[in-house]
Amino acid sequence: MGKTNAGRFFEDYRLGDVIAHAVPRTVSGGERAMYHALYPARHALYSSDAFAQASGLPASPMDDLIAFHVVFGKSVPDISLNAVANLGYGEGRWLKPVWPGDTLLSSSEVIGLKQNSNGKSGVVYVRTRGTNQHGETVMEYVRWVMVRKRDLDADAPATVIPDLAKSVDAGDLMIPEGLDFSGYDFTQAGEPHRWGDYEVGEKIDHVDGVTIEEAEHMLATRLWQNTAKVHFDATNREDGKRLIYGGHIISMARALSFNGLANAQMIVGLNAGAHANPCFSGDTVRAWSEVLDKADTPAPGVGAIRLRLVATKHGAPDFALKGEDGKYLPDVLLDLDYWALMPQ
Amino acid sequence: MGKTNAGRFFEDYRLGDVIAHAVPRTVSGGERAMYHALYPARHALYSSDAFAQASGLPASPMDDLIAFHVVFGKSVPDISLNAVANLGYGEGRWLKPVWPGDTLLSSSEVIGLKQNSNGKSGVVYVRTRGTNQHGETVMEYVRWVMVRKRDLDADAPATVIPDLAKSVDAGDLMIPEGLDFSGYDFTQAGEPHRWGDYEVGEKIDHVDGVTIEEAEHMLATRLWQNTAKVHFDATNREDGKRLIYGGHIISMARALSFNGLANAQMIVGLNAGAHANPCFSGDTVRAWSEVLDKADTPAPGVGAIRLRLVATKHGAPDFALKGEDGKYLPDVLLDLDYWALMPQ
Amino acid sequence: MGKTNAGRFFEDYRLGDVIAHAVPRTVSGGERAMYHALYPARHALYSSDAFAQASGLPASPMDDLIAFHVVFGKSVPDISLNAVANLGYGEGRWLKPVWPGDTLLSSSEVIGLKQNSNGKSGVVYVRTRGTNQHGETVMEYVRWVMVRKRDLDADAPATVIPDLAKSVDAGDLMIPEGLDFSGYDFTQAGEPHRWGDYEVGEKIDHVDGVTIEEAEHMLATRLWQNTAKVHFDATNREDGKRLIYGGHIISMARALSFNGLANAQMIVGLNAGAHANPCFSGDTVRAWSEVLDKADTPAPGVGAIRLRLVATKHGAPDFALKGEDGKYLPDVLLDLDYWALMPQ
Repeated sequence: MGKTNAGRFFEDYRLGDVIAHAVPRTVSGGERAMYHALYPARHALYSSDAFAQASGLPASPMDDLIAFHVVFGKSVPDISLNAVANLGYGEGRWLKPVWPGDTLLSSSEVIGLKQNSNGKSGVVYVRTRGTNQHGETVMEYVRWVMVRKRDLDADAPATVIPDLAKSVDAGDLMIPEGLDFSGYDFTQAGEPHRWGDYEVGEKIDHVDGVTIEEAEHMLATRLWQNTAKVHFDATNREDGKRLIYGGHIISMARALSFNGLANAQMIVGLNAGAHANPCFSGDTVRAWSEVLDKADTPAPGVGAIRLRLVATKHGAPDFALKGEDGKYLPDVLLDLDYWALMPQ
Repeated sequence: MGKTNAGRFFEDYRLGDVIAHAVPRTVSGGERAMYHALYPARHALYSSDAFAQASGLPASPMDDLIAFHVVFGKSVPDISLNAVANLGYGEGRWLKPVWPGDTLLSSSEVIGLKQNSNGKSGVVYVRTRGTNQHGETVMEYVRWVMVRKRDLDADAPATVIPDLAKSVDAGDLMIPEGLDFSGYDFTQAGEPHRWGDYEVGEKIDHVDGVTIEEAEHMLATRLWQNTAKVHFDATNREDGKRLIYGGHIISMARALSFNGLANAQMIVGLNAGAHANPCFSGDTVRAWSEVLDKADTPAPGVGAIRLRLVATKHGAPDFALKGEDGKYLPDVLLDLDYWALMPQ
Repeated sequence: MGKTNAGRFFEDYRLGDVIAHAVPRTVSGGERAMYHALYPARHALYSSDAFAQASGLPASPMDDLIAFHVVFGKSVPDISLNAVANLGYGEGRWLKPVWPGDTLLSSSEVIGLKQNSNGKSGVVYVRTRGTNQHGETVMEYVRWVMVRKRDLDADAPATVIPDLAKSVDAGDLMIPEGLDFSGYDFTQAGEPHRWGDYEVGEKIDHVDGVTIEEAEHMLATRLWQNTAKVHFDATNREDGKRLIYGGHIISMARALSFNGLANAQMIVGLNAGAHANPCFSGDTVRAWSEVLDKADTPAPGVGAIRLRLVATKHGAPDFALKGEDGKYLPDVLLDLDYWALMPQ
């Protein structure tokens, strides 16, 4: 087995290393159609060239989360093949739209390391960047994962925990060049609620639910060339279950949030994120959102809205998130904090 | 939940209302590939640019039923989110081919209303039109659905039942500009039978069967942005089953009918249609057809054939459709009456 | 049922017949995206326009096995609809890359016939060729299948068994015009191992496994317009199982072989192949490879490597293939012998 990739273990990471991930990928209308078959995605800007052009863009870009999945998927063989847990996200920004025909690559810089007190694993912090065929960065984010050690006797590295911002500053959000919501068509977009209609603290139950199938989460995960065994091989876990890629839950919840947030058109910032509990085939995913913050932007008619997006297994009419012990409730799958652009 | 769409109830419809449906959609080769993965679609005109060009078209158009599904899917949030039953179709015509790159929108005009005698629901008749980015109507059809009332005390509207044609007159069928079957290649198309070989009254058992999977019908239904809960959420019905979108059965039956009707290339008219019984995952869908009528067209080498397409759960070697009570037999899923174009 | 295709039986084949298969198919980025969702395909040349251009090609071609599946699928209604078994492959070559937008057709020449001693069936040998819209042959291969007789009293044909090469001579492999691996980027491709690093006799366990789902193998099989009932209709076999298209296993195994053979970029020759045992939904497919031969090519930096690719149901750490009786072990699904192009 000398030629196969066994993945990196905790002791293989060095602070400052920049790991170039493999297999560039050209995306097209095919990936978009698959995405829209896999998720109930309806945000008009990613559905219609005509709507995007009326919003000042040259065409409809690839869905914001397609960019995330492609960039993330490439990092899996180098970062999370031996991960015990995907612990968190932060400082994420979408910097350039991705267009059909673009070719994406990604790389990750090791920005933090901390061996666990048990000596069997450690936390690796990486800043992952995706670039297009012109060398432009299309998105970047920090994630940290718990990774096993291969050799328990390997020396612990000096502990470095990066000082991450609690959220992306609204002034640092990148607005796609040309974006203009001053002539926004709310009828076509599907809901009348504009930026000014949302209040900080407001919560929205997105009502709909989708029951998860093995074939669907595997199609989704493969599409982004994410190769983690645990998603595909029913013999990998003792219980015979295939763990569902956390990104599948992110995309499902974001698509479900259309019902109540149809005008939260583009995701431009990822402030924080946690996969609170695992999800398996047969679970029915629902979602709710909370408005965390609002900010103006320099683009005409464009406001920024900061949202908490929560995915749950059994609905959550009371918007419960954590128990008295401060831990996520067992039904909670995802707690995501992001910035989106909305018509004012 | 003030910002989510609860859908319209019976008392929310007014005769003459024109409802503009949300979320324009650009279709591409991606949607075509998904369609051909979801259904055993083999009609050559929708499979090959070269074959379409030899038939006088600039390229292979998107499958006729893709146009139907996209236009129909947009109408679901406004027309059938609270529907008890999808009762029928009529006066349907395909007016312009849809090409890869086109952006579709749809709207529905309320053309009839009749409250049921129980006072709890009523029938809404709408004429739904799909348009492309040039404002041209690409297809239109009438459908009527039974919709619940929210407020049982709401006044009943004046009863208006539209006077619908039993079938589209052959002279009103729109032949795509340039269509010419005079050099038609029957070998490439897959069968030697031409328009003249079919007789009114002739019945064809299409032989093949496809067993339905949850993942497939959900992929199909989502692809057309049809958001009806009952198709996706296993907790929505007491029996834990997900009801399959009727359009999935239409496309499956139409694709199965290739075997015996390979030359019924383009659907151009929808005379009538009924979803006779519900279909669930695990059912095996089969199909048979009956030739109802034939007509000449002004296009070179092009004839029109009117067909009844029946989908069943367990096959129907004796072509049985209804019982002595005049009701559809329990195995019948679909009874569709349409016009197709065929080489003469 | 006079208009449906019942398929050919053994006595319907005549030596020298050339059967033109139906339904030309235009392929696009949509088919590519579906392929990459269905299989963990990661070979960089088929994933990235930029990588393909750096390798001297105008763009990323459609995956080599997409060409095979499309050409094969067309032959099913004429060759294997009444087949008892798909016995083998040989003398296969990929002659021209297939590009998005190409339209493929295929035809088969009957090159051998041998009635079985039981008089109930016989073996048909065909050479199948796929052509593009310019009339160029894009690939060709021989396969032989056991086909039932319709009329057991039909005369046996003269036995003709074609004299097939044990493998394609390395000098007969077609290298795509312009292919140049002299500036090959091993980091982007995913592994550092070049042609010179592989030794004849070396075996590689590809480690990963994928559990097969009904929805996925049906999507795959339909995408190539393969209509064999046994893959789609759960009522077709007495055990209620749907037999999985052998090509699904070929593509799955080839994609799994990325892990250890990431630089075996393009398949250009198919020397032999056997579907050793049937595969069903729920099986977990794994793969291993053996290096059989190596050869130089005239293209800059390009070597040819001959590989045995074995798919199994339960892994094979000891690389076992056949029992003492010379028969394939029950866990073996596929034994494929092919030539690939690799950077030197």
